[in-house]
Amino acid sequence: MMDEIQEELVTKIQELLTNKDYMALRSTMMELQAADIAVLLGEFPEDDIPILFRLLPKETAAECFAYFETEVQETLINEFSDRELWNVIEGLFVDDMVDIIEEMPANVVKRIIKNTPYEKREEVNMILRYPKNSAGTIMTTEFVELKAWMTREQVYRNIRESGVEKETVYDCYVTDASRHLIGVISVKDLIMSDDEDAVVDDLMETEVIAANVLEDRESVVATMKKYGFVALPVTDGENRLVGIVTSDDALTVIEDESTEDIEIMAAITPSEKTYFKTTVFETWKMRIPWLLFLMISSVFTSKILQYFEGQLTANGALIAFMPMLMGTAGNAGGQVSVTIIRSLSIGEVRMSDILKIVWKEFRVSILCGITLAVVNFLKMLAVDNVTIGVALTVSLTISLTVVVAKFIGGILPVIAKRIGFDPAVMASPFITTICDAVSLLLYFRVASIILGI
Amino acid sequence: MMDEIQEELVTKIQELLTNKDYMALRSTMMELQAADIAVLLGEFPEDDIPILFRLLPKETAAECFAYFETEVQETLINEFSDRELWNVIEGLFVDDMVDIIEEMPANVVKRIIKNTPYEKREEVNMILRYPKNSAGTIMTTEFVELKAWMTREQVYRNIRESGVEKETVYDCYVTDASRHLIGVISVKDLIMSDDEDAVVDDLMETEVIAANVLEDRESVVATMKKYGFVALPVTDGENRLVGIVTSDDALTVIEDESTEDIEIMAAITPSEKTYFKTTVFETWKMRIPWLLFLMISSVFTSKILQYFEGQLTANGALIAFMPMLMGTAGNAGGQVSVTIIRSLSIGEVRMSDILKIVWKEFRVSILCGITLAVVNFLKMLAVDNVTIGVALTVSLTISLTVVVAKFIGGILPVIAKRIGFDPAVMASPFITTICDAVSLLLYFRVASIILGI
Repeated sequence: MMDEIQEELVTKIQELLTNKDYMALRSTMMELQAADIAVLLGEFPEDDIPILFRLLPKETAAECFAYFETEVQETLINEFSDRELWNVIEGLFVDDMVDIIEEMPANVVKRIIKNTPYEKREEVNMILRYPKNSAGTIMTTEFVELKAWMTREQVYRNIRESGVEKETVYDCYVTDASRHLIGVISVKDLIMSDDEDAVVDDLMETEVIAANVLEDRESVVATMKKYGFVALPVTDGENRLVGIVTSDDALTVIEDESTEDIEIMAAITPSEKTYFKTTVFETWKMRIPWLLFLMISSVFTSKILQYFEGQLTANGALIAFMPMLMGTAGNAGGQVSVTIIRSLSIGEVRMSDILKIVWKEFRVSILCGITLAVVNFLKMLAVDNVTIGVALTVSLTISLTVVVAKFIGGILPVIAKRIGFDPAVMASPFITTICDAVSLLLYFRVASIILGI
Repeated sequence: MMDEIQEELVTKIQELLTNKDYMALRSTMMELQAADIAVLLGEFPEDDIPILFRLLPKETAAECFAYFETEVQETLINEFSDRELWNVIEGLFVDDMVDIIEEMPANVVKRIIKNTPYEKREEVNMILRYPKNSAGTIMTTEFVELKAWMTREQVYRNIRESGVEKETVYDCYVTDASRHLIGVISVKDLIMSDDEDAVVDDLMETEVIAANVLEDRESVVATMKKYGFVALPVTDGENRLVGIVTSDDALTVIEDESTEDIEIMAAITPSEKTYFKTTVFETWKMRIPWLLFLMISSVFTSKILQYFEGQLTANGALIAFMPMLMGTAGNAGGQVSVTIIRSLSIGEVRMSDILKIVWKEFRVSILCGITLAVVNFLKMLAVDNVTIGVALTVSLTISLTVVVAKFIGGILPVIAKRIGFDPAVMASPFITTICDAVSLLLYFRVASIILGI
């Protein structure tokens, strides 16, 4: 929805609200998608939201409720009578309910649980118990479950009777009497079939690709992406169907996982909250551990510089180029490490490729090293007003550090993965710290050879 | 498919191939999904692939072909007779064909085009002409198009007749005589309806959310994510239906866009090729511009250090802590810039939030600055063997640089976006260069006040 249209709508609804024209209000809102109604209502003051919300028909109300910001949800729940709360909860999908419960304070959660039908409560609790980032936490427990003996008409009736509450009906899963997953049939297969008398058993695919409920959500999405599935069944350890993951869950997972990778690469502890929802103190907690760790670990560069203090003060000209050397090394190493981390993460590179990576990075770093050294040599003579010896020292150091930095940047993420760490922790800030130390050591070594210090 | 299972299969197929048992080969392969057959065949030497490929039935062959690596596709096309090529192309979806054509050398493209039915050629050319990253380049032109007067049975027949070639049939779009998009109806709506005599007009939703064919692919996916759609119709400037975007395209877009963001943040020119498919020279070209730019821009730090060279050589103890100060500033600034870049990219933060960002980062940076200063002060006295004056100088500089770095990291991405740059270019390496200069300037200012140099 575009911003101008939204503003117009807000004005219109405000007017109708002042005039207490509830019929018109209701029909204006009903022209919109639930997601848009939620955005729209978010623009109104806290007092008006419950009035507007109560005008929505029961089903739209529940759908809309799932789209609200956490604060609006909390306000509404506190406004609701028990009966109203029960109605909304009845219309919510189990996975949306889990998302809501995870964000609410304990006293609100208590009230929600109290007003949840028994069966739904069981399902919510089950999902809340699965390990973080497992298939179990992203799946929905509402799906169409068919039996092998059903005819096409029986399937349609089954979908019709159970379907309104299901998030997706297009892939239906077939189970035996003990709920073991034995087949999958898509609505497309049913429509495609010319045989009026066919039963599910005749049309279903028996080689079903499923995820285990404890499997990492990233691998679940990778499977869906590989096969182009709109849904994937989730089974427990005994191949019993417990839920399905749908394509909109997959979109969210891909986006979340990328954000997590990016945060870790930037030396931030990942968080599931959005930027403005994270308090100042929480933000501090997410950032300070890495800042402290990286600050402390620079004790190596300090020690190196303290050791060479005498040579540096005697050859003051060398000092000016330390930041450039350290910066270039860090950038060169960071480029590689980030590339490898991302490639590992989306499966383009495997741990066994380490030698191929080293060989490729070696050739790239030779090219980069020579280019940088030549440009730097000319630049130093032209603008920095230094001796040829100093220019040569700095340029040679650049090319050497780039080679070493690209080597380190290439292997560290792979090693991290092999020993069970998230490769993303090996990104730029960490690489920078190592490259700082390496480039200084090389600098003094090269300087002692060329300048004899 | 797990690695051990795959190895077993490769061995089995090699055996059957040696024994020329083509019947068994065919049935072994037919038990697998097309995506898995493609991975499997990729493990065989170039000479064996055409033999195995020719054993596949026509439809599976085309599906499989779309999954192959570019090199394998090229080998096969060169092996194919014109008739074989025609058969494969006939079975390919238009969007897969476009992907293949974009990767092939000119002579192969010529042969492909020559062996493509006229209508499909038109569609491929149309997609190839859309601007980079537009909805037009990710959409598929094969979809179910219905008329308002159709009955349920007519819809099913229509899907049945046209559907096998369609990537998705679950959302069907309704057009008028001039192909203007007038409604959408899902197969679910059809199944749900109890009214046997209903026509499309009675059941369809007329408020259709569609993307424009020139719209950025990122905004297309954002729309799909917002409404939880499995498909989105794409229309031209006159609201005529030209294609649809499906959820598997959306998954790819989200992953690609995240990778692009990550590459730009790491100072790499983004590329669409995978790590190992990019040649050494191409990799050099992607990385060297930024390395050169960042190297040259460190001329500021060099100038600052040259200016203060006298003070530094006279107070050698200060040199040892320069890398730590610059590193901490870069890390602190990088944490903010990366957070803001990602939040802008997924729509959690808007340009108008700049003052809110500054205010939040100011408070966070005060907390971080104090923590770092205190820890650093104690650490310097304990292990670095320096005077209280030096420890005080360094610690005070740390807290000041962190405040400034977080301010710069917070506003630069927003400013970049406002003036029409990709905010991601303002990530760590760029911020680091600025923070280096700022932290040195602050260092010398604080030192001159506290130490009187």
